[in-house]
Amino acid sequence: MPKSAPTFFCEDIASGWLGESESAHAQRVLRLPEGAAVFVADGKGRKVAAVLAHSEKKRVAFRTVREAAVFSHRLPLHIAIAPPKSSDRFAFFLEKVTEMGLHSITPILCSRSERRALRLEKAEKTLISALKQSGNGWLPQLHPYTPFEVFVAQHTTSAQRKLIAHCAEDPEKKKLNHWLSKEEFTVILVGPEGDFTKEERLCAKENGYHAVSLGNARLRTETAGILACHTAYLSA
Amino acid sequence: MPKSAPTFFCEDIASGWLGESESAHAQRVLRLPEGAAVFVADGKGRKVAAVLAHSEKKRVAFRTVREAAVFSHRLPLHIAIAPPKSSDRFAFFLEKVTEMGLHSITPILCSRSERRALRLEKAEKTLISALKQSGNGWLPQLHPYTPFEVFVAQHTTSAQRKLIAHCAEDPEKKKLNHWLSKEEFTVILVGPEGDFTKEERLCAKENGYHAVSLGNARLRTETAGILACHTAYLSA
Repeated sequence: MPKSAPTFFCEDIASGWLGESESAHAQRVLRLPEGAAVFVADGKGRKVAAVLAHSEKKRVAFRTVREAAVFSHRLPLHIAIAPPKSSDRFAFFLEKVTEMGLHSITPILCSRSERRALRLEKAEKTLISALKQSGNGWLPQLHPYTPFEVFVAQHTTSAQRKLIAHCAEDPEKKKLNHWLSKEEFTVILVGPEGDFTKEERLCAKENGYHAVSLGNARLRTETAGILACHTAYLSA
Repeated sequence: MPKSAPTFFCEDIASGWLGESESAHAQRVLRLPEGAAVFVADGKGRKVAAVLAHSEKKRVAFRTVREAAVFSHRLPLHIAIAPPKSSDRFAFFLEKVTEMGLHSITPILCSRSERRALRLEKAEKTLISALKQSGNGWLPQLHPYTPFEVFVAQHTTSAQRKLIAHCAEDPEKKKLNHWLSKEEFTVILVGPEGDFTKEERLCAKENGYHAVSLGNARLRTETAGILACHTAYLSA
């Protein structure tokens, strides 16, 4: 089976059917015939080698041939990020963290967020496309667009490590890699271009979030998110 | 002076004049009046606070008020990278490494490069725009599009650390951060989506390049470049 065989996404491999948009991709874009060798990934760590079985209108069946890959460690990191104004920039963030195997993403609505609405289905499509392209086995969990205060309150009781990356002066601030470890699940807040407000920083602190720095450079939001993910990737 | 004053790029601050495209930006896009407070960065580590003095057609003068910023360490890293087919992806790479303060970039033409030509002026514009937006003081040096073999031969005699990031099996391969240090200038080769060929890997090895890994994930070219830069950023 050629390594370069295309990968399709299918949440339920046991079903033996690709979903509508994946079927369309196989039929109309790639024009794959019956018997074509493919990979099918469920985004939950499983990827199989398969052959396309038969096609109906808008539905393509596949037959699993063998298990194809075991995926290394999923990054135990949840990034809660204020989506930048540009949807291209947010898409780029989504793509890069999928390549690295990030666990979870929550878009958060902050006081200074320039973007007040978000098309979740579009973001989900970007993730799936990055999953297929990257050959990675994990699809990040994408949560709904959540107001900052709601997110911070939701995550108060769990035992995981909680961090907030901001640019304000704070004597207690440490470098991000000080806190990351292979074993502990971490959640990190990444703010909008104008940074978190003082009130948001206080609110996070009261809820057990530690302030962290991503270095001295002034980074765009999506850059901060990508680099935070990479720091976890290096620690894993 | 407001922190949010716009930054302009001017290679020769002593001249007291913005160049044509920066002048157009001040006059026509931002419509700044005489006396407006601005920053002017030369991309060589110097940034001054200034006021706009007077405008002529396509030329805006400025008067330096004071030195505005001292820039931290420039990353002692030169990334030689095969530009991906998508110019958006290459632009994203250029922007991110400028935010982090990368020293030098050479686009390299490899056997499997999908992109055979490159508009250098467009890339330069992306760098300048990222420099202005990021508030960073260093503009990466952008070298011409260079064939792989030529680049590798050019860099054979210098004493700097030479690395090649590839995905092939290699028992001598080490993680990138094993090699990076604050003091030593490093050059790293990042290949096209289809990776370097065996011949290219051998050619690099013969010229003193050590093989490095950026982890187990299959990364897009521009992602590999950004993450290599971030690894240096974390080591600096």
